[in-house]
This record gives sequence, C-alpha cells and structure tokens, in this order.
Amino acid sequence: MTPNEKLKEMGIVLPEPPAGVGAYVPWIQTGNLVITSGQLPWKDGVMAFGGKCGSDFGIPDGYQAAKLCAINALAQISQAVDGDLSCVKQIVRVEGFVHTAPGFRGHPDVLNGASEFFNHVFGDAGIHARVALGIDEMPLNAAVQIVVWVEVA
Amino acid sequence: MTPNEKLKEMGIVLPEPPAGVGAYVPWIQTGNLVITSGQLPWKDGVMAFGGKCGSDFGIPDGYQAAKLCAINALAQISQAVDGDLSCVKQIVRVEGFVHTAPGFRGHPDVLNGASEFFNHVFGDAGIHARVALGIDEMPLNAAVQIVVWVEVA
Amino acid sequence: MTPNEKLKEMGIVLPEPPAGVGAYVPWIQTGNLVITSGQLPWKDGVMAFGGKCGSDFGIPDGYQAAKLCAINALAQISQAVDGDLSCVKQIVRVEGFVHTAPGFRGHPDVLNGASEFFNHVFGDAGIHARVALGIDEMPLNAAVQIVVWVEVA
Repeated sequence: MTPNEKLKEMGIVLPEPPAGVGAYVPWIQTGNLVITSGQLPWKDGVMAFGGKCGSDFGIPDGYQAAKLCAINALAQISQAVDGDLSCVKQIVRVEGFVHTAPGFRGHPDVLNGASEFFNHVFGDAGIHARVALGIDEMPLNAAVQIVVWVEVA
Repeated sequence: MTPNEKLKEMGIVLPEPPAGVGAYVPWIQTGNLVITSGQLPWKDGVMAFGGKCGSDFGIPDGYQAAKLCAINALAQISQAVDGDLSCVKQIVRVEGFVHTAPGFRGHPDVLNGASEFFNHVFGDAGIHARVALGIDEMPLNAAVQIVVWVEVA
Repeated sequence: MTPNEKLKEMGIVLPEPPAGVGAYVPWIQTGNLVITSGQLPWKDGVMAFGGKCGSDFGIPDGYQAAKLCAINALAQISQAVDGDLSCVKQIVRVEGFVHTAPGFRGHPDVLNGASEFFNHVFGDAGIHARVALGIDEMPLNAAVQIVVWVEVA
C-alpha cells in the first residue's frame, strides 16, 4: 500500500498546508532533504490545541496535538513532492517541542502522537530519529511544535 | 546586485566573526552545507541585548537583537566562503531562540529581525525554513540566539 | 592513534547503546550524515544525572552529565559504523540542552563536558559547531540532553 493509500485507509485528508507566521517559507529542500519549518497544531485556520501540557491539558490531548502537527507537516511535505508521498524515501528526523507546565516530564508520550503517525503511514520508511524538548513559552501558545526532515527520491 | 553590494548599500559592515564561548568552532561545513554555531547578539565584544523578551525589553528591541545575531551569523558565513557571499546559493534554515519572560508569545515578530535581514540581502536565495522557540534560560543571558544553515556553491 | 585506541587509553568502554524512550530509533543515516536522537545521561539503565543545573547540581556535575550523554551518543555512532570509529570523518554538530533552574547561565561550561570529550577522542575530526539552550522541563528530568551529527566515510 502506498502512503497516499494508507492515508485514505486511515480516513485522513491532508489539509491545505498552513502558511508560516513570519518572513519564512513552510518547507525547503537542500540536496535530497526536505525540512519543514516549525509546524503548529492548526486545524481549519484555528489553533486547535493551545496551552501547556501538565496544566491546561494532559498527555492524551498532547498526543492528539502532536499528531495534528505531524499531519500539517505531511501536508507541507506532500507539496514538496507534488502530492506523491511514495517519493518520500525516509522520514529522517522529528524535532519535537512540547509546551510544558512546571514539572511535566511526559514529553515522549506526547510526541509519540507524531512518531506513531509517521510509522503507521510510511512503515519502515517512517522510522526516524527524534529529539524531545520542553518549551516554557511557545509561539502563539501552541501546545506542541514539530519539525520534520524527510529524504526524498 | 550581489549580496556584498547589497550589504554596502544597507550601510552594514560585517564585524570580525565572534568567537564561540566554549570548546567548539563558530561554523562547520559538511558537504555543501555550512552550519553556524549558536550566534548571540554580540556587538564590539559586548552582549548588546541581554535579558528576557516580555519583561526586560519588547518586540522592537527583540527584532534588533535577532537582526544583530543574523549579522554575526553572516560574518561567520562570509568567512566560510572567503568573503564572497555570492557563493551562498540558499539560506536554508534559521533556528530561532527567544529568551522569553512568562507569557511572551511574540516569537515570530522578534525572529523576523533575522529573517527579513536575510531576505533583504539575498533576495530569493534568502528564503528559508524556520523554527521558533522560547527559551527560559539563555546562555550568558542573551536576548536571542540563532543558528543559520546555508547551502554554498 | 585511532579513536578506538584513544578511548581505550582513556579507560572508556562504550556501553550498550541506550534504547530510545518512544516510537523512534536512536540514530539514523541520511547520505553520509549520521544523526543521533536526543541522548540522556543514562548509565547502566539508570538516569545518572537528574534535576536542574543551578539548583539540584552545579557546573561540575553538569559537565559530567554532558560527558555521559556524549559517551552514550558515541555508543550509538559506533553502532552506525559497525564499531570502527575511524569511519567518523568529522563530528559535525552538537546540539546541547541543559535542564536549567531559574537564573542559570553557565550552559557553555556544562556542554564543554561533551565537546571536550569529542575533541579529545577524535582530535581535528572532533571539532564541531554547537548550539546551547536552557530547557525548563526536560524529558524524564534528565540533567542534560545532547544530539550529535557526524559525517561518516
């Protein structure tokens, strides 16, 4: 099954790739790497998950926020490969940033929302390295931010 | 107009590239990517912008701090290309870190100080991906830190 | 002296590379770059350095925590090159994250624990770019987290 067929099976329609919030572009290619800008949990133009993990919401909502960031990242990547996600040879790296309240330490469980999404859609090509950081003040109060690196054919 | 001519038109003289503050080098090349170390808002050997955005200073000073970091980054990059900035094919990525006071969320406006500088100097080659994070405690109390990736010819 | 001989001289035996704590892999290769996931100060399956720098511990312990992260990163890299560290052409970049208490600003001194380790083991090939950030809430309460990029032959 191709990644596009897998998305269809999962009932996921990639959104219009969200525009950046500043003087930059949402993704760039250098060599055969495509790297996204920081992706926030936008849905239909609204910040769907705001606030801090550990006070404003818990791990289940954080997981969904991370998954939504990953879907938005994939919408950017889809644009980079003209809609054919089988051109993605490997999800290389996920940089994961969780908007954390004091004492919150469950970053890995939150960011699995993004990682498991990529693993599910791409199989072996979805396996990636990851870094997980807690951020005290996130742009626009976003609950999660992720950056995705992919290697393209 | 070349990037060096553009800088001249803007009245900007690149400083001596600031040394790192630790056991590392200020930039490195791997393949045709040059990646800087974290650049701080040094000016003439002094930390020109210190403190936290949202309490010690506001967005306009943050914007200037980000621009100064970008100028220092460009001084490093200039060294990597022996002073000829037309060897820069693309500013690939800006990693932007804002030293944030509680509740500050205007990271994009601050980091536009770096992004707009690169866009202005390099035109289409200045377009880049970006990630924006708020940092609670910044090395040496710096107001902003940026890392710049460039693709060179 | 090869890097493996240097490690032996230093009395350092690389541990079993720690597993990741989530749905990702501990390192990945893209082109001739190997990039680790975030490495924490694990020792024998235990988080050897937890808490925040500036309150729970000072710079000397932070330095040791960063060195331990670097040793764990090198264990991952060793796996990527089938145990022959002379395949490492260059340590390219260290991303250094310090779990910081309010007001702590000595990140460079802490992260030198990682940087000086790489410089010592690899000589000129150990020279790298670095970014240093303070993190308010670190996954699993780790004292330090680092990511390492290496260029391999």
